[in-house]
Amino acid sequence: MKFPTGYTYAAIYAGIRKQEKNDLALIVSTPPAVAAAMFTRNMVQAAPVRLARKNLASSKGRVAAVLINAGNANCATRTGDRVALLSTRAAAKALGCRADHVLPCSTGVIGVELDPNLLTGSLTPLVAKLSPDAFEDVANAIMTTDTRQKIAWEEVSCEGGVVQVVGMAKGSGMIQPNMATMLAFVMTDAVVKADDLDAMLERAVERSFHSLTVDGDTSTNDTTLLLANGASGIKPRGRERDALADAVARVMESLARQIAADGEGARKLIVIRAAGFRNRKEAARIARAVANSPLVKTAIAGSDANWGRILAAAGYSGAVFDPRDVDVRLQQTLVCRKGLAADYDEPALKAKLDASEVEIEILHQREGKGEARFFTCDLTEGYIQINGSYRT
Amino acid sequence: MKFPTGYTYAAIYAGIRKQEKNDLALIVSTPPAVAAAMFTRNMVQAAPVRLARKNLASSKGRVAAVLINAGNANCATRTGDRVALLSTRAAAKALGCRADHVLPCSTGVIGVELDPNLLTGSLTPLVAKLSPDAFEDVANAIMTTDTRQKIAWEEVSCEGGVVQVVGMAKGSGMIQPNMATMLAFVMTDAVVKADDLDAMLERAVERSFHSLTVDGDTSTNDTTLLLANGASGIKPRGRERDALADAVARVMESLARQIAADGEGARKLIVIRAAGFRNRKEAARIARAVANSPLVKTAIAGSDANWGRILAAAGYSGAVFDPRDVDVRLQQTLVCRKGLAADYDEPALKAKLDASEVEIEILHQREGKGEARFFTCDLTEGYIQINGSYRT
Repeated sequence: MKFPTGYTYAAIYAGIRKQEKNDLALIVSTPPAVAAAMFTRNMVQAAPVRLARKNLASSKGRVAAVLINAGNANCATRTGDRVALLSTRAAAKALGCRADHVLPCSTGVIGVELDPNLLTGSLTPLVAKLSPDAFEDVANAIMTTDTRQKIAWEEVSCEGGVVQVVGMAKGSGMIQPNMATMLAFVMTDAVVKADDLDAMLERAVERSFHSLTVDGDTSTNDTTLLLANGASGIKPRGRERDALADAVARVMESLARQIAADGEGARKLIVIRAAGFRNRKEAARIARAVANSPLVKTAIAGSDANWGRILAAAGYSGAVFDPRDVDVRLQQTLVCRKGLAADYDEPALKAKLDASEVEIEILHQREGKGEARFFTCDLTEGYIQINGSYRT
Repeated sequence: MKFPTGYTYAAIYAGIRKQEKNDLALIVSTPPAVAAAMFTRNMVQAAPVRLARKNLASSKGRVAAVLINAGNANCATRTGDRVALLSTRAAAKALGCRADHVLPCSTGVIGVELDPNLLTGSLTPLVAKLSPDAFEDVANAIMTTDTRQKIAWEEVSCEGGVVQVVGMAKGSGMIQPNMATMLAFVMTDAVVKADDLDAMLERAVERSFHSLTVDGDTSTNDTTLLLANGASGIKPRGRERDALADAVARVMESLARQIAADGEGARKLIVIRAAGFRNRKEAARIARAVANSPLVKTAIAGSDANWGRILAAAGYSGAVFDPRDVDVRLQQTLVCRKGLAADYDEPALKAKLDASEVEIEILHQREGKGEARFFTCDLTEGYIQINGSYRT
């Protein structure tokens, strides 16, 4: 894994979470990067989300640093706006950059006051630790109920040389399209115009984080950032730019898969593909309904080829189709042919369903080219255990 | 509990489910009743649902008998239509009534062929058992993963005498508005015109079964029937008719609460009330989103006053509001005031949340009179255990 030039990273324990594990992290770009951003669409938005939007507007989309804390969402509290403002100002001072060039991100419990001194008091030692090699330290510090770090990497060869794309994310529970308690940061050292960067982000998110669901819940803090600092001096053009867009999309898809596979209590990644429907929107409705069905997710947890539940979820998705035109395949095995039970070897399929990645395909035999893919995970007792006592 | 006159009931073990427990049941009305019906809106509809619709059309809404089996949904199979037809014809023959006066209902696993001989061969002994006192036998026979029978009763005093309303339902998992693997049968001996009966059913369902969710899934077999056979000879008019409509609504609300309380793995009934929003539709969006949130449902399972999850679910419901206008109350305790943490005694509230019925209120302080209530249950390890191995 190679890192894009011009980025440094640091993480520290600031005492925000009870457990002594790094909970404050910094990503710094020199020079300040062009940024494309997407935030939660929840009506309830955390203070850092509001401030990040404001800073991006006033800095015209330039970002010198991202300040991230875990353990507290800084949401629905009396002092949230002030905490976000004080901590980004302190970061700007310690870094010697403009305050509106610092974006805040928070993840953790909602509705608990966050002591701003924990953040401001940690900034000098945090800045002192900045290093181009501490990428994984940040990926670890931003984890909450995640059981493992989520990172991905691509490189793109251009005429002028090679540019790098790296990404990290945190996810786990409360993830669903539009979007997730999900923080994702993707960095490249290519030279990219703001408009092009926005287009790359939108395309990549549509097929990754917006096609991802763990439990159907959407958080107040979701943030996806794509940064391009141009530190490589290489400006991809034409097909090189397309290749860069593809690389960004692959990094985000990889992060989305890792988030689904590490859903709270998950033992399996489930990839749902709906194809042959009237259009992408109809296919996405079906894929999303199947991905969000607790009955499907518990069946997969039990390696049970219960395709009736898959067909039923497609049926209530809102998509319009005749079930007699629909096939269902599980791990490439045809289990439902034209809406009816197909002949298949049940014990053999059960064994295939024990895999750590399970593919569900809902295939329309007639209509069109509408296709969509969704990522989710199985639903196990672990999810309940984690979420029944998260705050205690 | 008094029973409406003119109805008889019977249940028998026909060998449809492996476990030797009654799985075939009959409700007979003499004379044939005026019927109002609502069926699943799933695109995938079981054969008995299709035949029941057809019979109601051809009989102009008259019903002499309802034939119900548990253990097999008779859905997505090669022979489903034929099985439904053969079994209702056999019932009509055994009862000496028109075939289109018999409605079939099935509940159980999808996609497994149902042997029609199991049903037709059991009809003579089933009819021989018909009795006005066997109401609860039917309520028990239609259960699948239900842990207890669901019945309710009301009576209405009219000038000409008293009319009775009784209801039974099966529910458990896979329940959600529009509608539920839910079968519900409500019978009265009042004289009611078809149009009035339709209106009564629609109003009662809106505030009961359509305000009920266990896991967000909707089944292929949902059926709610309201029968009025007029056997009492009493025709409620004016305010008496309103009183009858209220009685029907209370019976259905009681059944809906019982279904939620007996959701798969549930230990608690959760009643969600959203009030003060722009209109009922906006309030219902919020109540439904909170009711469907696995994060809220697991928190309540753990008696955790995690109001941030409630606010977040309201935020992604699609309803438009400013969180700073919203209060949240749990068991009458104010936990969130104007979108911020309220002062409350956490251990005392935790104890209150250990109750078998938990009330969540989301209260808008400004806008309007839009109010809605939803019924659901907590989400526990039990749900996963039941649904990970339902077919095995």
